[in-house]
Amino acid sequence: MRRFVIVGQNAMTSGDFVLDDVPGTSGRMDVLVRCIRAAMLVSHGIRSDTVVYLVLLGAPNPPRTIRIDGSLARFIRPDERNLAALVQKVLSRDSAREASEGYVEHRRGISIARGGIDMVLDEVVGARAFVLDAGGKDVRDVEKLSEQDIDAVFFVGDHLGWDDPTRAALLGAGVAAISVGPIVLHAEDAVTLVCNELDRREARAPAAPTT
Amino acid sequence: MRRFVIVGQNAMTSGDFVLDDVPGTSGRMDVLVRCIRAAMLVSHGIRSDTVVYLVLLGAPNPPRTIRIDGSLARFIRPDERNLAALVQKVLSRDSAREASEGYVEHRRGISIARGGIDMVLDEVVGARAFVLDAGGKDVRDVEKLSEQDIDAVFFVGDHLGWDDPTRAALLGAGVAAISVGPIVLHAEDAVTLVCNELDRREARAPAAPTT
Repeated sequence: MRRFVIVGQNAMTSGDFVLDDVPGTSGRMDVLVRCIRAAMLVSHGIRSDTVVYLVLLGAPNPPRTIRIDGSLARFIRPDERNLAALVQKVLSRDSAREASEGYVEHRRGISIARGGIDMVLDEVVGARAFVLDAGGKDVRDVEKLSEQDIDAVFFVGDHLGWDDPTRAALLGAGVAAISVGPIVLHAEDAVTLVCNELDRREARAPAAPTT
Repeated sequence: MRRFVIVGQNAMTSGDFVLDDVPGTSGRMDVLVRCIRAAMLVSHGIRSDTVVYLVLLGAPNPPRTIRIDGSLARFIRPDERNLAALVQKVLSRDSAREASEGYVEHRRGISIARGGIDMVLDEVVGARAFVLDAGGKDVRDVEKLSEQDIDAVFFVGDHLGWDDPTRAALLGAGVAAISVGPIVLHAEDAVTLVCNELDRREARAPAAPTT
């Protein structure tokens, strides 16, 4: 299982943004939804081994986290407007139930909870955890990104990168910093590059020994 | 110089599509504009060494080709709607002038011409040329992608991949097939992966010998 946790520092926690101007009205939800596509979609299909979390820290009601589970979700479209409309619908639910019930399902495979980074860190305990950060170790040189029985989780910042408290919290939780190359890229490109590295390693992983 | 040539088999050659439904009304211009972002934009900047061509082969007036030159263009936004609106404006120009004048500038660094793959192939003569194709050689194993004095050009198909005549035309012109990994990805992810491979090689290229 692969998990990508995309953290939107200003990303709105209500559905009160305008689909005709997502970058200007949503706290840059456009960045986050592009990461959904990069993490979950391949040519003509969904990655069933992938879960994406959008951790939303903007006004008016932070934190809230949307979770999309590729093993269950269907009809995830690649284009930004459709993805933003999906997020808007999920956010427009009454958030009162989330506080008492944890994740509340919006539709099969897509749910929302009241909580942020700390909640997600609790949820992925035991996974091999990484944070995408320009100063981190090159992903191609990281010896073990995932293994057959160990999940990997990748924390990805938005266009603002990481604020110091969040970076400290992640590193304090033992999350290793990795980078994807010599140039600082958009969040969605970093996700694409991590997925490709995982794809390559899984493709060449030896079958389990039979003796 | 890096050039990316994105070929939209059904991509509209007029501006008569609806920004509220780009995937459903434009011949999948959404795929092409996502490739613009992937090829040209990095965190808080434009790649000045990159030129993107959108080769549009759909109704009503094919072929037309939009060229975006990163060394000249400014204010390229990352989100799909803004990019689609830009393309729409360029396509809404009177196409009569293109036939007589070649590339017609829409605004600084962004121009349009009447022509398709063959026109672009003529324009990039001398460049090292590659076509992204699932059966091609792994980009990580290609010895020379570009060199200090030799441009590279990458032909990228849309969600439909390559029709047989186009693939034959490219291979007939000596364009080498390369692939980006074990899983067939969206066009924009392939662009991201090629850019990253180029970034890495340029970062570790030795300085020219001084003796």
